[in-house]
Amino acid sequence: MSDENDLLGALRLLATSPAARGLADDAAVLELGGEALVLTHDMMAEGVHWLPGQDPADIAWKLVAVNLSDLAAKGAEPLGVLLGYTLGADDARFVAGLREVLERYRVPLLGGDTVAKAGPATHGLTAIGRATHRPVPSRAGARPGDGLWLSGPIGGAMLGFEALRAGVAEADTAAFRRPLPRLDEGRRLAPDVTAMMDVSDGLLLDSLRLARASGVTLELATEAVPFAAGVREQGRCTDALAWGDDYQLLFTAPGWFVPQIPCYRIGDVVAQGANSLLIDGEPPATGAALGYIHAALR
Amino acid sequence: MSDENDLLGALRLLATSPAARGLADDAAVLELGGEALVLTHDMMAEGVHWLPGQDPADIAWKLVAVNLSDLAAKGAEPLGVLLGYTLGADDARFVAGLREVLERYRVPLLGGDTVAKAGPATHGLTAIGRATHRPVPSRAGARPGDGLWLSGPIGGAMLGFEALRAGVAEADTAAFRRPLPRLDEGRRLAPDVTAMMDVSDGLLLDSLRLARASGVTLELATEAVPFAAGVREQGRCTDALAWGDDYQLLFTAPGWFVPQIPCYRIGDVVAQGANSLLIDGEPPATGAALGYIHAALR
Repeated sequence: MSDENDLLGALRLLATSPAARGLADDAAVLELGGEALVLTHDMMAEGVHWLPGQDPADIAWKLVAVNLSDLAAKGAEPLGVLLGYTLGADDARFVAGLREVLERYRVPLLGGDTVAKAGPATHGLTAIGRATHRPVPSRAGARPGDGLWLSGPIGGAMLGFEALRAGVAEADTAAFRRPLPRLDEGRRLAPDVTAMMDVSDGLLLDSLRLARASGVTLELATEAVPFAAGVREQGRCTDALAWGDDYQLLFTAPGWFVPQIPCYRIGDVVAQGANSLLIDGEPPATGAALGYIHAALR
Repeated sequence: MSDENDLLGALRLLATSPAARGLADDAAVLELGGEALVLTHDMMAEGVHWLPGQDPADIAWKLVAVNLSDLAAKGAEPLGVLLGYTLGADDARFVAGLREVLERYRVPLLGGDTVAKAGPATHGLTAIGRATHRPVPSRAGARPGDGLWLSGPIGGAMLGFEALRAGVAEADTAAFRRPLPRLDEGRRLAPDVTAMMDVSDGLLLDSLRLARASGVTLELATEAVPFAAGVREQGRCTDALAWGDDYQLLFTAPGWFVPQIPCYRIGDVVAQGANSLLIDGEPPATGAALGYIHAALR
């Protein structure tokens, strides 16, 4: 198979249920017994998703948080998680972080598996939730005339990652190590949004995905984008627009929408034009990195 | 953390929902909207669960089959799977095997994640099903007076593994490479059983687990155990009793039970004695291997 896009294409042929949403959403949405069950599975691998020497407690936190963030994007409340864990040098620290994040979001561990193996570790987590609002938000509902919104500042994870990598002891690296899934925000927004997703791979890339899924063009105004402390001061706004890992919610809402929680209008939805994404009126430069493209099944 | 038992103990403290069944069953059972959802996650790792050079299509088959087998033990029908996949040298073969097993059992792929990383691959799979009968069978319901039953012969996976490892070209190794989850059998048995589990780690070890979960003693009669072709002829019955990977269903049923499908009565349930398991009237020899102990959260 030549590349990951081919793989994804082949896997889509196996996603024969509407619940799979064509592997093109943050999570699967399975109707069962009058409820809409929301299911997601994300992996993290040593050397890919975390730095050598990082505290296993932080890895556990992030593994749970990124999955809960997918539930947040559906306005779902978590019911539990299943863990796939590779045994390592400091399992006690991993469990300590797991306990912290599960207690923080009141989510039980439901089951899973562990494996003892050589080489870099890979952990997986499945999160299960129930939708609190129907229809369950997807990436595909944005309509011309809607506003484009973001739930909070971006760029904090980028600065945190860089400080952690550089070993800056006094830096606040929590935004990278311990991202916060916006579960409350997602539940409160779900009734009002026309489309919603979490920003995991970069605001520009994820905006493009939302635009394409919805068949619209998004006009993003970068001066309206909220940045974490330090990003603007250090001249890193452009980088932050293409950096993920902040797990804010990106959503569209009708013109009448008045936010009841802090969030930021960062642009407009217009009819689909020649480009699905306009940044301050211009299409993205050819070859410019819009975000981190990994091979998630979405 | 000194060993995997400590880890499991620590994880049990996080399994605060009754749905987790104390991490002591084949799967979690989550009540939702009038349905009982059955959830399981098993991993497979290169160098642990498969031989170097094995066809990725077989690995995909087995990854799905072992998870569906956990659903079978609950009498559940599968609703879908989520895949956590490490990209490798021959992704097309993996997808081909995945398609075969999903089509065979009519299960859709609902979502998941992929990761590109160095070192040996680790794949994970979450299977979701709905129970077809209440109460959902567990390991804990065996009662004195019940019979102990097995759904079919064991030892085939052991011989298949050995032939594959030895490179015996003409050998039938399918029992190891492509185990069959007993989904139909599980659904048909669920209304009649008092306890049920799948035999993944060895008949003796899994019998001991069922006995302990139920607080009974199991009296196993080895002459009644069905063995795959070749096992008895090659004098491998003792080995086969402690070899897993055949994914037969082990269950207990009241004295009145008359099987409507092929299965084998291999012993009796009696009141808990000094030993939870008696093999032809004797407790297992001290230090004898009863099966393959891995660190599954169960």
